[in-house]
Amino acid sequence: MGEPLTVGVDFGTLSGRAVVVRVRDGAELGSAVFEYPHGVLDETLPATGRALPPEWALQVPGDYVGVLRNAVPAALRDAGVDAGDVVGIATDFTACTMVPATADGTPLCELPEFESNPHAYVKLWKHHSAQPQAVRINELARARGEKWLPRYGGLISSEWEFAKGLEVFEEAPEVYAAMRHWVEAADWIVWQLTGSYVRNACTAGYKGILQDGQYPSRDFLRELAPGFESFVAEKLEHPLGELGSRAGSLSAEAASWTGLPEGIAVAVGNVDAHVTAPAAQAVEPGQMVAIMGTSTCHVMNGAELHEVPGMCGVVEGGIVPGLWGYEAGQSGVGDIFGWFVEHFAGASHEELTRLAARQEIGEHGLIALDWHSGNRSVLVDHELSGVIVGQTLATRAEDVYRALLEATAFGTRKIIETFSAAGVPVTELIIAGGLAKNALLMQIYADVTNLPLSVIGSAQGPALGSAIHAAVAAGAHADIRVAAAAMGSVERAVYRPVPAHVTAYDELYAEYTELHDYFGRGGNDVMHRLAARKRAVAKGQS
Amino acid sequence: MGEPLTVGVDFGTLSGRAVVVRVRDGAELGSAVFEYPHGVLDETLPATGRALPPEWALQVPGDYVGVLRNAVPAALRDAGVDAGDVVGIATDFTACTMVPATADGTPLCELPEFESNPHAYVKLWKHHSAQPQAVRINELARARGEKWLPRYGGLISSEWEFAKGLEVFEEAPEVYAAMRHWVEAADWIVWQLTGSYVRNACTAGYKGILQDGQYPSRDFLRELAPGFESFVAEKLEHPLGELGSRAGSLSAEAASWTGLPEGIAVAVGNVDAHVTAPAAQAVEPGQMVAIMGTSTCHVMNGAELHEVPGMCGVVEGGIVPGLWGYEAGQSGVGDIFGWFVEHFAGASHEELTRLAARQEIGEHGLIALDWHSGNRSVLVDHELSGVIVGQTLATRAEDVYRALLEATAFGTRKIIETFSAAGVPVTELIIAGGLAKNALLMQIYADVTNLPLSVIGSAQGPALGSAIHAAVAAGAHADIRVAAAAMGSVERAVYRPVPAHVTAYDELYAEYTELHDYFGRGGNDVMHRLAARKRAVAKGQS
Repeated sequence: MGEPLTVGVDFGTLSGRAVVVRVRDGAELGSAVFEYPHGVLDETLPATGRALPPEWALQVPGDYVGVLRNAVPAALRDAGVDAGDVVGIATDFTACTMVPATADGTPLCELPEFESNPHAYVKLWKHHSAQPQAVRINELARARGEKWLPRYGGLISSEWEFAKGLEVFEEAPEVYAAMRHWVEAADWIVWQLTGSYVRNACTAGYKGILQDGQYPSRDFLRELAPGFESFVAEKLEHPLGELGSRAGSLSAEAASWTGLPEGIAVAVGNVDAHVTAPAAQAVEPGQMVAIMGTSTCHVMNGAELHEVPGMCGVVEGGIVPGLWGYEAGQSGVGDIFGWFVEHFAGASHEELTRLAARQEIGEHGLIALDWHSGNRSVLVDHELSGVIVGQTLATRAEDVYRALLEATAFGTRKIIETFSAAGVPVTELIIAGGLAKNALLMQIYADVTNLPLSVIGSAQGPALGSAIHAAVAAGAHADIRVAAAAMGSVERAVYRPVPAHVTAYDELYAEYTELHDYFGRGGNDVMHRLAARKRAVAKGQS
Repeated sequence: MGEPLTVGVDFGTLSGRAVVVRVRDGAELGSAVFEYPHGVLDETLPATGRALPPEWALQVPGDYVGVLRNAVPAALRDAGVDAGDVVGIATDFTACTMVPATADGTPLCELPEFESNPHAYVKLWKHHSAQPQAVRINELARARGEKWLPRYGGLISSEWEFAKGLEVFEEAPEVYAAMRHWVEAADWIVWQLTGSYVRNACTAGYKGILQDGQYPSRDFLRELAPGFESFVAEKLEHPLGELGSRAGSLSAEAASWTGLPEGIAVAVGNVDAHVTAPAAQAVEPGQMVAIMGTSTCHVMNGAELHEVPGMCGVVEGGIVPGLWGYEAGQSGVGDIFGWFVEHFAGASHEELTRLAARQEIGEHGLIALDWHSGNRSVLVDHELSGVIVGQTLATRAEDVYRALLEATAFGTRKIIETFSAAGVPVTELIIAGGLAKNALLMQIYADVTNLPLSVIGSAQGPALGSAIHAAVAAGAHADIRVAAAAMGSVERAVYRPVPAHVTAYDELYAEYTELHDYFGRGGNDVMHRLAARKRAVAKGQS
């Protein structure tokens, strides 16, 4: 027998990645990726070819099992290890991604009577058609003064469990009736591994509005929609599992899929962003992890409960048991850069970065707002849109590119300042995700936030984070803190703020803030009007 | 002998064009272009290779004579006519383009002692380094309540005679001392044709601050800069010629350059935009001509004097003797489209136009401000810059392109509304210039302004306009009105506003106005601060 190993599996939007990790030091010994055969269903349903409305985004649950069947064995082969050394497995998932399931966990879309009903499929995190339901939830919660509302920065998202659930209730009553469990995919995949359903504390809190042991009341739900009052009791409520604890043991069937030993520990489900914090050794209050990819998710622990305006949520034990887990986000970051490069730049990221890096701060004369995909924090408004101010005939693509990089850094600073002002100070910024490798971007973030920037040591942070949770669930480490210290990795203060740059960016950030508040806080609601007009035109044409 | 002909010569920024026109009906029989060998000097002086500061733009006067020597004979050859049938010649020029000259009209840069002094060269209209002088002129005029100031919308431009003259006075006293005449190139070229200097009423009014027979007072000039009080008397003042009148007769030397008969009529000098009005038969009050190219110049006659805020100027007889000539402008139009296509679009004007034309109004969800080259009217602020609001990840190049087209149309509407509100109603919009051939752009202008759009019949409006003035100067037509009716051409109401479009654009124009006033009228001076920072960075680096 070799040293104890664990397997972490990260379920992303388009594929799942398995990584085999040594429990002693977190060494990543092998990995493999499996792309979901059906990808994201946003145009048609496979069974029928039936067209989906705009803003829909579905998935096929069998694709997730494909990751267990393919990526896990492939990662073991890649590592060249004996599967018998693996003591535990853990998973992390996109969220809020919801599976409507029967009592035994069968997804409704796998039943012949529902295969042509889009509501019977997995509603992916970026399924956005439940916006009208979200608006009603928020209006009613505000009107009733529901005390859980401030725990979510004042707004419940259309992406979350209640809005998507209400959409099923109202638009597909036959699916709603047949659905025994409205399950986070993060938990559904664990159910497939163990054969039993455990609801994880992270998504139950962040996406399921579970606060202080309570879901929204029957009264609230009845007022929201008569008949919906039993949603919690009949579809949602289920015993919880703490993060890092053991959900169960690997079933014989799952052992046969994965090639792992039957009976090893399976950890409670978790979310990709949240599981990354221990992978970056960021488990203490004040250490904010920014997972920067197409979008950015910010997660941080705090010793106390504070209500931060515009955050995504605060959940007790939402990242590490015993601390309050805070989450915020920027809905567009890398995808804004990618959009600009693909459609407007005529040059590569590398070339634009090279040219932009030669500039002094303010040389381009531009200021941008990074809302091309809306604003998740701290304005929580998906109808906001991008702005660029200051273009002249001398403006070139690298100027706009740099302005967009800076705009996302200003957006992160806005979140950090809002946290700090609400009594949740941020003392260190730790970057994970694909954008960490852009040195110009990183220096801009250090200069704009005036914080030392640490960088996660692993290129596959979520999968490593899951492997850490697997080690805790298997009892190989005492708790997540201890496991993070042993298995996580971070390079401290890789980028340090340059004082002259900090001063220069302070001035540009003041400009950003003025435009941020003008366009985002009611000074001029032009973005909402433009979006409404765009929708009206689209409707008139269809 | 054939029918009487005239020659019109249009001196542009990079070349001069001669056209041979039949007096009876304005038929354009032949034309030719001569490109200035030295083009625009904006980097170095040819004599020395000495670098020029930013914002400088000089020309070499000998290049203009090259147009007379080359383009005029070539146009005659192209027309296949007998030069003996030509009864007159007239010219139009960019303005304000200034030549420092001796008493006999010799440009100072042609004297060996000045060939390496940049102030001895022609200062082209877009020479912008006299901005500090312009600021002082405006501040003092405001403080003293000079009554000529409102005749220029409240602001004297850095491009004009006084700012450029003061720059010479202060920065090159040796050139200033040697200069007997500070001559508009529009008049200098006529001087070359006739051998005598006549100052045209158009530039004297619009660029030389001649109002009600008075230039700015000696008092004013002394307070502006001690020693400058004799500027008008010693350098500027000179007998005027009315537009369309005879400045003199073609000299033997000019006859030998051009191949035209000695002694034929030479018309008083004129400006490219203003001379285009009769070419488009737009000589009555309310008929606004927009000459749309890289920038747009708006000219219109009015029966009465009104002071329009932010116009470029109002001059008695400035377009047609007996009427008040109003001028306004947009400093960036075609050059904004060109800039976007060259640096951001990855597609041609034609392709973008094709895609943009398929859109409904508001479908792109964007609103732009067309200030990439500053704002000439009605804000008169060259430090303003471009804005685009509403970009999302779904925004494509054709969306931005269309938003830019619309933004320039909104800019024209803003000018028209300002004229109308000041008591100078605009009843017809007549388009001349290269952009008239873009049907999408034209329909947008009709829909945005809610005015029928007429289009000039000639592709070489300024040269035709000059030929019209030549015919009047030669006595072949009674006056400019009569000549315009016979020789000018316009197609009326080629584009008519579509009522549903007008309504839709009214809403978008309201958005434009709100942003226009926010960024342009003190709501948020971010553009000035960005420009100042950009300048500071450029200085710090040099």
